[in-house]
Amino acid sequence: MSEFIPPLEILIEQFQRLPGIGRKTAQRLAFSIIDSEEEKVLQFAEALVNAKKNIHYCPSCYNFSEGGLCSVCRNSEKDKTVICVVEDAKVLMAIERVKGANRYNGLYHVLHGVISPLDGIGPEQLKIKELLERVADPELKEVIIATNPSVEGEATAMYITKLLKPMGLKITRLAFGIPAGGDLEYTDDMTLLYALQGRREL
Amino acid sequence: MSEFIPPLEILIEQFQRLPGIGRKTAQRLAFSIIDSEEEKVLQFAEALVNAKKNIHYCPSCYNFSEGGLCSVCRNSEKDKTVICVVEDAKVLMAIERVKGANRYNGLYHVLHGVISPLDGIGPEQLKIKELLERVADPELKEVIIATNPSVEGEATAMYITKLLKPMGLKITRLAFGIPAGGDLEYTDDMTLLYALQGRREL
Repeated sequence: MSEFIPPLEILIEQFQRLPGIGRKTAQRLAFSIIDSEEEKVLQFAEALVNAKKNIHYCPSCYNFSEGGLCSVCRNSEKDKTVICVVEDAKVLMAIERVKGANRYNGLYHVLHGVISPLDGIGPEQLKIKELLERVADPELKEVIIATNPSVEGEATAMYITKLLKPMGLKITRLAFGIPAGGDLEYTDDMTLLYALQGRREL
Repeated sequence: MSEFIPPLEILIEQFQRLPGIGRKTAQRLAFSIIDSEEEKVLQFAEALVNAKKNIHYCPSCYNFSEGGLCSVCRNSEKDKTVICVVEDAKVLMAIERVKGANRYNGLYHVLHGVISPLDGIGPEQLKIKELLERVADPELKEVIIATNPSVEGEATAMYITKLLKPMGLKITRLAFGIPAGGDLEYTDDMTLLYALQGRREL
């Protein structure tokens, strides 16, 4: 038995399907919709449909695009000799957001996930085949693997490295260690281990 | 400057307008929409529009209704001699959800807020005038004021009491005190005060 009248119950269930939204939050969000002006609700509904309809994947790097190549691939100022492999478009945006002279200026490749056998995600579900095709480009010199330092991220990095290594490319991995402004006393064991293993000679 | 392509940025902004949803959560929700099947997104958009279009207020108690009187007011088994005044429909649902022989079986009146001068909400923005009209019903014997034990809830309770008292009705307020299963040692000062002030003779 549902507690609420059908249109409200349906809306609550829809909100509950979103990641990280429980029953109580879904109720709060649904009530706020009912309290909003009709025009605002229509705008929200339209934004949902438009986002789904108009956001496509870039046919080259699989970043979000409104059709055709994405803004990074279209940008003629980007260094086409480097590809940075990321888990999802959010990481790409995070790297693009960095300002300054030393910022990364190469291309990207969005995997759309990481290898995770427990979740039934194998290499064939990711854009790895597509990466191999791009790597055939003679202009390319380096592939930076920027997956997260999680078990799945590391496994994916290793898998890709094994595939690309025989092609004679430079394969690099992001540095992991103490974050900027971090305090060694409060750093977790895993990060300390990374920082020690990745130590550099001065 | 927006970080994302327009349809995505617009969707993120729409999610951000919801209460308690910050930029990061809005991004997460927007990304999950893009990853969903188109049919699911259309269902969500439809649920939004339908909820807004089909949920009306009961012309008697201002609870949610799909048109005409709400399910409580329509229920002939309800005791029409008691009205329980609540801040919003969520409280009404919470009271209706209680099971058992002693459960409340009267009518309700939803104020749609509490008096809060700091937020610019005065008595005229609430359904207080409508409550006064209902109270003229000679069948009515008791009004239970079930606003929250907050500053605004108490002020609203006092305001309504002042208005209704001259009408010769029985006006009651919910009991506040130690909650079921509560531990006196860990009860806050205000609750202890309520519990002591509201003590009953055994």
